[in-house]
Amino acid sequence: MTIDVVSYLKTQGELIEQQLERLIPVRHGPHQHLFEAARYALLGGGKRLRPILTLTTTRLLGGDQALALSPACTLEMIHTYSLIHDDLPCMDDDDYRRGKLTVHRKYSEGHAVLTGDFLLTYAFEVLATDAHLTPDKKAHLIATLARHSGGEGMIGGQVMDLTFEGKKIPLETLRLLHRNKTAALITAAIEFGGIIANATPAQLDCLRQFGEYIGLAFQVVDDILDVTSSQAKHGRAIASDILNDKSTYVSLLGMEQAQAYAQNFYNQALISLKPLPYDTSLLVGLADFVLHRKH
Amino acid sequence: MTIDVVSYLKTQGELIEQQLERLIPVRHGPHQHLFEAARYALLGGGKRLRPILTLTTTRLLGGDQALALSPACTLEMIHTYSLIHDDLPCMDDDDYRRGKLTVHRKYSEGHAVLTGDFLLTYAFEVLATDAHLTPDKKAHLIATLARHSGGEGMIGGQVMDLTFEGKKIPLETLRLLHRNKTAALITAAIEFGGIIANATPAQLDCLRQFGEYIGLAFQVVDDILDVTSSQAKHGRAIASDILNDKSTYVSLLGMEQAQAYAQNFYNQALISLKPLPYDTSLLVGLADFVLHRKH
Repeated sequence: MTIDVVSYLKTQGELIEQQLERLIPVRHGPHQHLFEAARYALLGGGKRLRPILTLTTTRLLGGDQALALSPACTLEMIHTYSLIHDDLPCMDDDDYRRGKLTVHRKYSEGHAVLTGDFLLTYAFEVLATDAHLTPDKKAHLIATLARHSGGEGMIGGQVMDLTFEGKKIPLETLRLLHRNKTAALITAAIEFGGIIANATPAQLDCLRQFGEYIGLAFQVVDDILDVTSSQAKHGRAIASDILNDKSTYVSLLGMEQAQAYAQNFYNQALISLKPLPYDTSLLVGLADFVLHRKH
Repeated sequence: MTIDVVSYLKTQGELIEQQLERLIPVRHGPHQHLFEAARYALLGGGKRLRPILTLTTTRLLGGDQALALSPACTLEMIHTYSLIHDDLPCMDDDDYRRGKLTVHRKYSEGHAVLTGDFLLTYAFEVLATDAHLTPDKKAHLIATLARHSGGEGMIGGQVMDLTFEGKKIPLETLRLLHRNKTAALITAAIEFGGIIANATPAQLDCLRQFGEYIGLAFQVVDDILDVTSSQAKHGRAIASDILNDKSTYVSLLGMEQAQAYAQNFYNQALISLKPLPYDTSLLVGLADFVLHRKH
């Protein structure tokens, strides 16, 4: 990871933060509580990897990055709602997220459920009402987001996660689980950029493949960091997945092989970019970041 | 309520049931559990009032009812997800719904959260991928559904409901709460019909007003039934809202005045239909049903 990627992530992350601020402003009156909880969960934390992947993909395909800003934010809304619900006592039961109290600990469980529902619903509202998108693109983006975050994407993966808790599962099943739970939304982020920048169907296929591989690499690295990071660095309890008795890449493969497994996904991701007639070095830089990140 | 409305509700309800069956079929493989829980929650129960309002409005404006079938089902998906989340221990903590165990009692709390998330997400996927709708209509329907079911609609009302639990609130606040929590989605159902049947903006305004008034009447009647119905008839504990220490129209107005309040909303609803150059007798029949229903 070069210093350029770090500063690139920082400046792009600030653009996302500002747009999220605009999309979910401070409110007064009867809906004040809901907006406050949504802002608490959404603002001031997180790597913003998914929306930055959208901005980056849009730009590298020659699209207008400004048009991608709101759609990119909807990916962060979906990601954040999934974290809020995932942290609930009936799921992973986490007290801290991104270095602060989880939404149900800060407010209440009921508010956490509803804040998640709000961010989920609002993501689709933002896409459907975006003045910069044609109706055709709106429908394409909404279908893409719903598919990757739905029952055969992210939510499907979370259900598998719940179902397999406490069970040792084979590597292929763990990979399918994470292709759904983690890689699907990262894939959507990259596909979003392709759709906004008018990629051809063949180009969208390449982007989708790249997304899936770096999404899988992301999860392997997550499992590794879950073991190696201290709570202070990582913002949640050490090896919480192992404490929760979940199968992880590290528990199935051991540390060394898990690292090789992540490296392999990274290599595949880079191969997927080859057919694209564009300078993809920024996406390669983001893939490097995914592989080598320390938190 | 005439016998015609009862049999109309039955035949239309069957159309909805069949379409829901098609949209969420039995699945095998890794996503079997999720689809099973979604079908458990969605099928074989409920009045289907919202989707029937969509079908009816489409037809009375001269639209093709067959085109309205899938969009109508998305309203039932949103309604059902909101019931699943509302029934959770951290919200209303209900054990029974539509005469059977609630989703979190039948499966688990975690599964209930995710099943709700799935139905919510899938509603938007169905709209975005409906082969019978133009991209323009898809975007219009999605924006309408998200607005009415979101932070300034249904979810906003549920947050107010949580916030005001155990507090006596003024009638105007209760009305605002229920305009959000209950009337918004009923309004969306009627607006859906208008959009599908190419209503003019002025006609959409009339429909929206009608929806809001019968939505408000619906909630007043709900509060009355909560007190008067036995558990056997109603499918949940008697006066559960009063047990939960919530303000209701009955607790604020008394039974007799609450009935007059509902009648007034009904009258306003009928006045809203007057400017429409169509035979609106079916919608009047449905409004009658809302006012006089016994469950």
